[in-house]
Amino acid sequence: MLVQKYKDMLSGKSVIRELSEFATARGNEIGYENVFDYSLGNPSVPVPDDVTSQVIYYATMEAGTTHGYSPSLGITSVREAVAESLKDRFGLPYRKEHIFMACGAAGALAHAFRLVTEPGDEILTFAPFFPEYRPYVDLTGAVLKVVPPDTDSFQINIERFCEMLSPKVMAVLINTPNNPSGVVYSAETLRKLADILRERSAEYGHDIYLISDEPYREIVFDGVEAPCVSAFYDNTIMCYSFSKALSLPGERIGYVAVNPNCKDAELMVNMCGQISRGIGHNCPPSLFQLVTARLLDKTADLSVYETNMNILYKELTALGFSCVKPGGTFYIFPKALEEDAKVFCRKALKYDLILVPGDTFGAPGYFRMAYCIDTEKVERSLEALRRFVREEYT
Amino acid sequence: MLVQKYKDMLSGKSVIRELSEFATARGNEIGYENVFDYSLGNPSVPVPDDVTSQVIYYATMEAGTTHGYSPSLGITSVREAVAESLKDRFGLPYRKEHIFMACGAAGALAHAFRLVTEPGDEILTFAPFFPEYRPYVDLTGAVLKVVPPDTDSFQINIERFCEMLSPKVMAVLINTPNNPSGVVYSAETLRKLADILRERSAEYGHDIYLISDEPYREIVFDGVEAPCVSAFYDNTIMCYSFSKALSLPGERIGYVAVNPNCKDAELMVNMCGQISRGIGHNCPPSLFQLVTARLLDKTADLSVYETNMNILYKELTALGFSCVKPGGTFYIFPKALEEDAKVFCRKALKYDLILVPGDTFGAPGYFRMAYCIDTEKVERSLEALRRFVREEYT
Repeated sequence: MLVQKYKDMLSGKSVIRELSEFATARGNEIGYENVFDYSLGNPSVPVPDDVTSQVIYYATMEAGTTHGYSPSLGITSVREAVAESLKDRFGLPYRKEHIFMACGAAGALAHAFRLVTEPGDEILTFAPFFPEYRPYVDLTGAVLKVVPPDTDSFQINIERFCEMLSPKVMAVLINTPNNPSGVVYSAETLRKLADILRERSAEYGHDIYLISDEPYREIVFDGVEAPCVSAFYDNTIMCYSFSKALSLPGERIGYVAVNPNCKDAELMVNMCGQISRGIGHNCPPSLFQLVTARLLDKTADLSVYETNMNILYKELTALGFSCVKPGGTFYIFPKALEEDAKVFCRKALKYDLILVPGDTFGAPGYFRMAYCIDTEKVERSLEALRRFVREEYT
Repeated sequence: MLVQKYKDMLSGKSVIRELSEFATARGNEIGYENVFDYSLGNPSVPVPDDVTSQVIYYATMEAGTTHGYSPSLGITSVREAVAESLKDRFGLPYRKEHIFMACGAAGALAHAFRLVTEPGDEILTFAPFFPEYRPYVDLTGAVLKVVPPDTDSFQINIERFCEMLSPKVMAVLINTPNNPSGVVYSAETLRKLADILRERSAEYGHDIYLISDEPYREIVFDGVEAPCVSAFYDNTIMCYSFSKALSLPGERIGYVAVNPNCKDAELMVNMCGQISRGIGHNCPPSLFQLVTARLLDKTADLSVYETNMNILYKELTALGFSCVKPGGTFYIFPKALEEDAKVFCRKALKYDLILVPGDTFGAPGYFRMAYCIDTEKVERSLEALRRFVREEYT
């Protein structure tokens, strides 16, 4: 008999996917260049040439050395290179024993959740949040609870967080720079968060782990300081993906880095190798482990995202939208012009503007624009945005 | 708190890994070329040049098209190519809707198990069997039960199989050509197996699925017929990996192919996309999806495995070993010369012969040799084998 829970999931439609499909269908009618598709968070800039040259370098190396089995924790030299780079950059004493290579951030998170939660345990995250966290956590048997947003700043709602903490909470999951708000959590936010976690860990008599999902770490805009989460809290499990920084989301490459100051750090990395056996993970592709290890300090040309953000932020605020200025990522998360953001986004479709209602991200009344598209298209979309606001809301 | 079951797994040592580590350590003493290391099933032949040229082709294609996100079921053109190839080869009406691209056979099996079992359900497999099946299944919450071997032929023990079937059995897992025996299940075996499964499915009022793990499908020796498992039984879930055929085990690329005659085939493939979300799988690397789709009818030069098998089979039988002749793979599984194969294999270490006791594979009294090594080394090992037998057993 087929397992019902997966069958049931098929009827739950993803709003983002539906909007993206609408955009494609509409594109077939009027030309995709005329659809202002802000639905999908898919990197739009090309991979750096270095990726291509490293792929060729490793693919043409002496036979048998590139495509062989990786150890289940990752290729040793790759783990060393990652540790060295993190140490240099963040000043924490990372060694290869703290690094577990994983298939993208999703693979990294799948290990992190299983490391520290049993079925029935709670994980807290903060709205607005990446909606895939829901199935990721639910299917481990743990319970994801969402702290409502602080809509003034899209930092975290400390008061509600403190109320929702309980001895059942084994982990707190954060994502900074944040999808969908684009906000970077400040040092002040991280300090408060860490203080509370230390306090409650002591009170409850068990560690509460901080799982830090950092795929947007390299996309931070001019003048914004993006503090290293792990530097604030010893029991931090960093989950990283190269997808956005190097524009290769299809190659499924990232890592778990357990804070060297976490007392069980090496044990936890070894445990990841056991978790892998149960979820069919084994290890990420050898070729891209080798390639990314040579490009730890490189990124694709990410400047288009900041250009696009500035154009949109300026126009949105000029049009009267209330909007926290993004510090990074390729998202912006303004307040809708009517209470129900689903209705607002449906109206926008008439203007071929594809916007995603904030309900999906745990923040009703707001909407997300993913501006990982050509600047030229962002500019052309402004007239549609103006018409939309004028005709529907004035 | 860290999850105890993964901690506990760390103290369970893998016999194969321990032997492999012994071989490495001994190699450091006397030179690795003098250690006859038959422990690891790691493809030893180089990738075909076509892999390299396709990697370069796709890596240097127009920017942005190769390394992007794959749909969660796999790249559409890749699924089409796989379906077309399976259809041509096996005569079953595969379409892309029956194909789910996965990270190697381990990734494919992780989906197959979750498709058809809930925690507490049983999966039967046949000794001798690949020992990783144990953690793969245990960690889903299902229960793996092992049918004792038919040591005459290393086909399947039908009598014990029939006794062990019960309404709790939701799936039967087979691996042909088989690791560790090297045996190919005959058409007669598969026909009997399918008849029994149809009968019991009707009796129990639920389908029993056949999960067919086929990573060694392309390594079949001269004169041996390797029947297509799916052709015998409609409810077959084929799990394939390109690791052995193309010698790229580190690139984690394979697929699930649900038999088109299975009534829920398309639903099952869609369900795989949901299962992925819970286990951090998402999709296999885009580059290797594209590359392998162009090489579906190619293999590495696998002839060395047959050469090695013939040398070893001839010598082993001449030395008096009882041994079923392998029909494929790069394994042979003779009977040890004393009852306890662990003692037998320990004695062999004195002769720098690294052999794996059959206990690990659910067949005590036998031992495995993985002859995916250079023929020159196989030939040099014969003298050690002869000395071992002469000095210890005559």
